[in-house]
Amino acid sequence: MNGAESLLTAAREAGVTTCFANPGTTELPLVEAFDSVGGIRTVLGLAEGVVTGAADGYARITGLPAMTLLHLGPGFANGIANLHNARRARTPVLNVIGEHATWHQAADAPLAADIDSLARPVSCRVVRTTSTAAAAGEFLEVRQAALRERMPATLIAAADHMWTDGGEVPAVPAEPDRSTVDEQRVAGIAKLLAGPGRPVLLLGGEALGAEGLRLGARIAAATGGRVFAERNPARLERGPGVPTVRSLPYFPEDTLAALAEHTHLVLVGTGVPVSFFGYQGQPSVPVPEHVQVHTLADLDEDAVGALAALAEAAGADAEPPAREQPVLRPPEGELHAKAVATAIALEQPDGAIIVNEGVTAAAAYPAVAGAAPAHTELALTGGAIGMGIPVATGAALAAPDRPVITLQADGSAAYTLQGLWTQAREGLDVTTVICANSRYRILEAELGRAGVRRPGPAATGMTSLADPGADWVALATGFGVPAVRATTGEELRTALRRATAEPGPHLIEAVLP
Amino acid sequence: MNGAESLLTAAREAGVTTCFANPGTTELPLVEAFDSVGGIRTVLGLAEGVVTGAADGYARITGLPAMTLLHLGPGFANGIANLHNARRARTPVLNVIGEHATWHQAADAPLAADIDSLARPVSCRVVRTTSTAAAAGEFLEVRQAALRERMPATLIAAADHMWTDGGEVPAVPAEPDRSTVDEQRVAGIAKLLAGPGRPVLLLGGEALGAEGLRLGARIAAATGGRVFAERNPARLERGPGVPTVRSLPYFPEDTLAALAEHTHLVLVGTGVPVSFFGYQGQPSVPVPEHVQVHTLADLDEDAVGALAALAEAAGADAEPPAREQPVLRPPEGELHAKAVATAIALEQPDGAIIVNEGVTAAAAYPAVAGAAPAHTELALTGGAIGMGIPVATGAALAAPDRPVITLQADGSAAYTLQGLWTQAREGLDVTTVICANSRYRILEAELGRAGVRRPGPAATGMTSLADPGADWVALATGFGVPAVRATTGEELRTALRRATAEPGPHLIEAVLP
Repeated sequence: MNGAESLLTAAREAGVTTCFANPGTTELPLVEAFDSVGGIRTVLGLAEGVVTGAADGYARITGLPAMTLLHLGPGFANGIANLHNARRARTPVLNVIGEHATWHQAADAPLAADIDSLARPVSCRVVRTTSTAAAAGEFLEVRQAALRERMPATLIAAADHMWTDGGEVPAVPAEPDRSTVDEQRVAGIAKLLAGPGRPVLLLGGEALGAEGLRLGARIAAATGGRVFAERNPARLERGPGVPTVRSLPYFPEDTLAALAEHTHLVLVGTGVPVSFFGYQGQPSVPVPEHVQVHTLADLDEDAVGALAALAEAAGADAEPPAREQPVLRPPEGELHAKAVATAIALEQPDGAIIVNEGVTAAAAYPAVAGAAPAHTELALTGGAIGMGIPVATGAALAAPDRPVITLQADGSAAYTLQGLWTQAREGLDVTTVICANSRYRILEAELGRAGVRRPGPAATGMTSLADPGADWVALATGFGVPAVRATTGEELRTALRRATAEPGPHLIEAVLP
Repeated sequence: MNGAESLLTAAREAGVTTCFANPGTTELPLVEAFDSVGGIRTVLGLAEGVVTGAADGYARITGLPAMTLLHLGPGFANGIANLHNARRARTPVLNVIGEHATWHQAADAPLAADIDSLARPVSCRVVRTTSTAAAAGEFLEVRQAALRERMPATLIAAADHMWTDGGEVPAVPAEPDRSTVDEQRVAGIAKLLAGPGRPVLLLGGEALGAEGLRLGARIAAATGGRVFAERNPARLERGPGVPTVRSLPYFPEDTLAALAEHTHLVLVGTGVPVSFFGYQGQPSVPVPEHVQVHTLADLDEDAVGALAALAEAAGADAEPPAREQPVLRPPEGELHAKAVATAIALEQPDGAIIVNEGVTAAAAYPAVAGAAPAHTELALTGGAIGMGIPVATGAALAAPDRPVITLQADGSAAYTLQGLWTQAREGLDVTTVICANSRYRILEAELGRAGVRRPGPAATGMTSLADPGADWVALATGFGVPAVRATTGEELRTALRRATAEPGPHLIEAVLP
């Protein structure tokens, strides 16, 4: 057994089922070994941003880390942006990068680069293989770090370590335990919440699952408080029996206002809220000074367990009455962000996965999604655009029995449209809805916020995606995905019904004026 | 004047004419300043790989560094692969990355990342702005490093330094001199070449311009030697009066054979040849042991000046007879790599720029290009695929009076097809010829070389681009570029004639079975 075979055997025994890949020559021993070892599905992406984003989406749904196979420094670099999102989503990803043979590294061949320096910003651990015999163990070391930190981790596998005979497969170590929350901290917070004042629970991470949301709502009801969800959640559940919660607002002044009437901010599975960008005259951390901040569970702790303990300590055993959901009015006529979101909420099948990279249109969906059937929403966690199509691809592979709908801004879609090809090749049930407003609308908004009322030609040119507008129907068709255009609410609903009824991927260009 | 205005004023005064950009919120002060300062053309790319590749192509043609404007760590990361190619091409590029406001950096906002660690592997210098007053000077410091090292260099510009008033524009420092070659070294090499043995001159960098190639050929003729060009040149000239030279072969065993009958290897503007990958049983540096290696001019020295001095010292003043060029036979019937290359050589207008990212088909073009009209070839220097369409975009902006033809592999085109949109928006005279073989042919070849005769389903799946094959006509149309498909030599020639006769970009999908 060569090094590559030992590595993949260890991966398979550790429960890795899927490898998203865009390999090159230095990865060929591994490419071969997938056939000889067996048991790990390989999925090709036409660009590395697709590969890493799909690994993120896959793990957000299954909870199991996927492997990626990437080519040297430059190939890896193309995948960094979506690994950044995975890092912010707290998604474990097991990157394997093929490196030049050890004896060839000193030659500084054309593709040689400082892979470690590129990998570190998006990896909790970067390990280089030291020998054929050690390689599989080093892969497991990387996996252990990824599971412990819930973050991508990276193995740089030298080609000669992979192609040489003498691979050894060590035992797979047990998964690291999630650290639990200590009882004293829970009791302290329970006491606070029993006192005067209005608490806010800010839920994030696994606390945005059905159980966490129910517990949060019970605690809020029992203590006269309120629940918010962190912005841009990696994964959030909605549906019958799951309380709907609002996200904290995007702009810091709105967050300050939302928190103003509260006295305690209790963090559960998330950190203190920070402003997405630094704005002149606004604080980095938009928490009013009079609000006391407490951590019930940090990002590494068992947030749901902590909520259960707090609910018990606070005597919060009664389910609050379900909030009445708005009746959605079917959108008619010209499209706008809310009309697109409403059409999706009305037409999405039960049990759908909604990938939300709407960017400017992103907030429209959560505002109506409480009225939709049970679903899971995956959001853009790290702000690195181009996650929607790839994450949807990975999510669809993770849950072949669940329909996936991607609410997708056009500017972001242009980053990683190559992912449509993987959806076509794998026959995935993904419907991509492109919000085609032909501009980086968010930049226009930010320019306006910065006081620029009439942007000049350079600023206009750098925020407009028109001249020419992209033809998303042609682009999708080019990658093998059937596509239609919708210009009204009625057309969009019809297109959504057809797309979700028919197996395989579809794309709908929703034209926003 | 705010920091952004001072930075752009300094850039304009330093001769920067063009900024390739994909900005976000942290770059908005600069986006605004392009309008208030004026004099620098901004060109939007729909993904950062387009932005950085275009900056590379622009500088390869003009010799002047372009600026890039990129968004934080993740946006920059998307541009790393083509900056890697620029680094290997010895192309100066002036990256400006907008960073969070200084007072917001500690908050670790979602888009925050270790930009320095990402930038270092592809930058000869990474500088952070220290204040509004210092920012323009720090930009000029980065420019000076890029010009001196002929490599990308990176300024990380904090948003608050950009938006605050108090910018200062220092004087632009003189461009660093290219170090000249010392006379003793030239005399020593001249003496060697006058002795027994057969020398090889290996030309690279600026020695592949018309003057360097002429001088190399004269020296070879006078000394009974031979001239090779380095593989994958950043820029190479061909045409009447310019001697044609072969490149060193790709595989190390072929390079060893090509050098076997020689005694001296004289490096001119390039380093010692290294194998592109490390192959089992082959050396990293494929130079036979009996060959003595001498450096006439290293990568930082004035290679053309050194050649002129050597030609004089060697008494090589006679032009060698022009090599007879093969008469090209017009390709007929089914297409293959040589047929595509020949069709281009036959139809390319005088003075064209040929961007060669043919990958497997790349070598076919130089083999026939001696018979083509005068032209400049730009090759894939660093092996990071996805350079063709972006580099062609930048080259066309740099030389609006010259037609550009891109010989483009399909697997690589899929990385950065977004560049077609910029070609459409800017109305560039670029004809992209996609060699559509629907596979990573080079990986198939490498698998065969590694002894894999019948790849299994996983290996086949990861090297095939079929199921579905991309429809390049649809993809180009989707980004606003008119396109046709050609399946025979005759169709390809007709399509090339039409595309090059009509202004604006075109794409031809050349279907290779």
